Amino acid sequence: MSALADLKPQHFNWRMDGSVAVITLDRPERKNPLTFESYAELRDTFREMVYADDVDAVVFASNGGNFCSGGDVHDIIGPLLDRDMKGLLEFTRMTGDLVKAMIGCGKPIIAAVDGVCVGAGAIVAMASDIRFATSEAKTAFLFTRVGLAACDMGACAILPRIIGQGRANELLFTGRTMSAEEGERWGFFNRLIEADALEKEAVAYAQRLATGPNFGHMMTKTMLKQEWAMSIDEAIEAEAQAQAICMQTKDFRRAYDAFVAKQKPIFEGD
Amino acid sequence: MSALADLKPQHFNWRMDGSVAVITLDRPERKNPLTFESYAELRDTFREMVYADDVDAVVFASNGGNFCSGGDVHDIIGPLLDRDMKGLLEFTRMTGDLVKAMIGCGKPIIAAVDGVCVGAGAIVAMASDIRFATSEAKTAFLFTRVGLAACDMGACAILPRIIGQGRANELLFTGRTMSAEEGERWGFFNRLIEADALEKEAVAYAQRLATGPNFGHMMTKTMLKQEWAMSIDEAIEAEAQAQAICMQTKDFRRAYDAFVAKQKPIFEGD
Amino acid sequence: MSALADLKPQHFNWRMDGSVAVITLDRPERKNPLTFESYAELRDTFREMVYADDVDAVVFASNGGNFCSGGDVHDIIGPLLDRDMKGLLEFTRMTGDLVKAMIGCGKPIIAAVDGVCVGAGAIVAMASDIRFATSEAKTAFLFTRVGLAACDMGACAILPRIIGQGRANELLFTGRTMSAEEGERWGFFNRLIEADALEKEAVAYAQRLATGPNFGHMMTKTMLKQEWAMSIDEAIEAEAQAQAICMQTKDFRRAYDAFVAKQKPIFEGD
Repeated sequence: MSALADLKPQHFNWRMDGSVAVITLDRPERKNPLTFESYAELRDTFREMVYADDVDAVVFASNGGNFCSGGDVHDIIGPLLDRDMKGLLEFTRMTGDLVKAMIGCGKPIIAAVDGVCVGAGAIVAMASDIRFATSEAKTAFLFTRVGLAACDMGACAILPRIIGQGRANELLFTGRTMSAEEGERWGFFNRLIEADALEKEAVAYAQRLATGPNFGHMMTKTMLKQEWAMSIDEAIEAEAQAQAICMQTKDFRRAYDAFVAKQKPIFEGD
Repeated sequence: MSALADLKPQHFNWRMDGSVAVITLDRPERKNPLTFESYAELRDTFREMVYADDVDAVVFASNGGNFCSGGDVHDIIGPLLDRDMKGLLEFTRMTGDLVKAMIGCGKPIIAAVDGVCVGAGAIVAMASDIRFATSEAKTAFLFTRVGLAACDMGACAILPRIIGQGRANELLFTGRTMSAEEGERWGFFNRLIEADALEKEAVAYAQRLATGPNFGHMMTKTMLKQEWAMSIDEAIEAEAQAQAICMQTKDFRRAYDAFVAKQKPIFEGD
Repeated sequence: MSALADLKPQHFNWRMDGSVAVITLDRPERKNPLTFESYAELRDTFREMVYADDVDAVVFASNGGNFCSGGDVHDIIGPLLDRDMKGLLEFTRMTGDLVKAMIGCGKPIIAAVDGVCVGAGAIVAMASDIRFATSEAKTAFLFTRVGLAACDMGACAILPRIIGQGRANELLFTGRTMSAEEGERWGFFNRLIEADALEKEAVAYAQRLATGPNFGHMMTKTMLKQEWAMSIDEAIEAEAQAQAICMQTKDFRRAYDAFVAKQKPIFEGD
């Protein structure tokens, strides 16, 4: 077990609100680009989170009216041009490892998206479990705009499962901006919220999730990933095993006892 | 071959309307909870249905204004608290086996959802092929509310494929109610129908499906399951084989002959 | 490398508009049915397209107000009734191979759907990457209407990923017509367009895609197929490798150089 409440990251902003970690990227004057350093530190933080008992949910929030402008052209794309294949794969694996770490961290992640949400920023939103946005959110998987393919950090696998294969194809091939309204209509955003309430509502929502059952939430998140490419019968057997495990938690008994006593259960995560 | 028309189940209601089996759960005063006994008997009935030539389609209907309140807290959750892992897994596999049996039964299943449709009840609706509902349908995958994970009876695998990964995540983590209007907008419900017409329209719809081609419907249902986690090329080859089989049925010739004669084909299921 | 600009197909219409190939089916007086010959020639053409450097995108357009009426009852279904299993499988594999060839051709395909779009015609639209339609588009996966199963040419695998499993189930079991409005609402059609502008807008859209980056587009299309049934972690690793390959193209450098020079990049596909 470890603790993350006192984390002092160098390359992004971190604060705890109860047991909810609130992350924002830095440099709002440049719309919060990702850098080699912030990719790596975020990856390491989400990996560490698996063992952190003091974090129950995460809000990935916006900063200065924007979510994230993706990998910076000057700080990232320029240097990549000088790398050989070994160096390039090191980079694409690092960025992919951030997505793997977010999906594998065991805590629900709420993205709160305002303004620019493009490139790797759109991927961070996509790799979150639940997404809120303002009507000003502008989301673009713009990899083709920088001469690349859209298969970046899992986009060709994950985006179609969120908004459907046809809509994903269009966003991925063209790199065009998905409006907030489209995002809500297509199921990318769970809800649109006024800009000045966005972070507060996302944190409140995460707080409610953080009341648990947190062992259950961890298992839900785990199984959503596990069952991604299983057959139906395999998935059902996998859930039978996973849920049997959860039925041995004390939180299952706490829920029953509270129900019988006509009270609201207080979960403790074990 | 076997026959189910004369089935006299002990733990749920069953009637035949032509070759359409109409199932409802019992105890409307408690919103039709599932019990150990009704789980098992439903599982066995759907397994038997594979061999039943007198059932061509199924309607899983509501009773007294509600679909199903899920596993009963007193009758199911209470006793589970005293079980060891072997006993718990026996239960979660039994419930999962009901979903497997529904998906494997070879006949299209229409859920007709009114009122409460929660927990294992929401799963029964999810495991049906087509879903109608009234505007009063309240659907919740509320497993987290009882201290568990949302990975129950295949929910983490199947629900995301119906309504998209983002919307499914929200329903699964929070256990919140999906309104009928959301359900229709998100593709969970195929159509909303007035309460007093719901069962009648669902049965009429099932009757139309039951006119066949029923060998074809069986193969459609089989392949929807088979191809769940296949690669695209594998799925296309699997369909080439499955459809070649169907092209040897007499119903294929009946359709052609009827077309040439400018008549409506009468399918016989062979 | 090969060239397709001068292709003179016998069984469908082909023209080049810049580097965009525009395909229409023939015999508009019969709503453009597919025949044994046009299936085979289309399959061969999409297979050849993998090596064709002069085609960057494809528009599969309508002809005389209709897209495609599917396999002709007289020309295809009649003769199939006399075939043995070897002959039937030869047919179902040929039709499936058309879908495989479209998905494997390495170029984005835009379907421009007006009027009748049924049976194998609906499959051709489904197997395209992006779909535009007029409000008159009538799309039906009507295989059950001819006595068969809906598992034809990949429909049970692909359609659910585009519009969701519940909506797909209904269309597949019943063979009913999906209206253009439903198609847009459900994500089957990316956009509805006036009939007299449909082909022009689809070609203009394809032209924009054809400005590249075409190596990237090929890789996007490849990975959308590759990752179809991968686990999330496998998909992310596969994208790390694929994108590292793309980062060695000159188009990646061209995009960077153009950005630095505040110009629009001109991609060359290498």
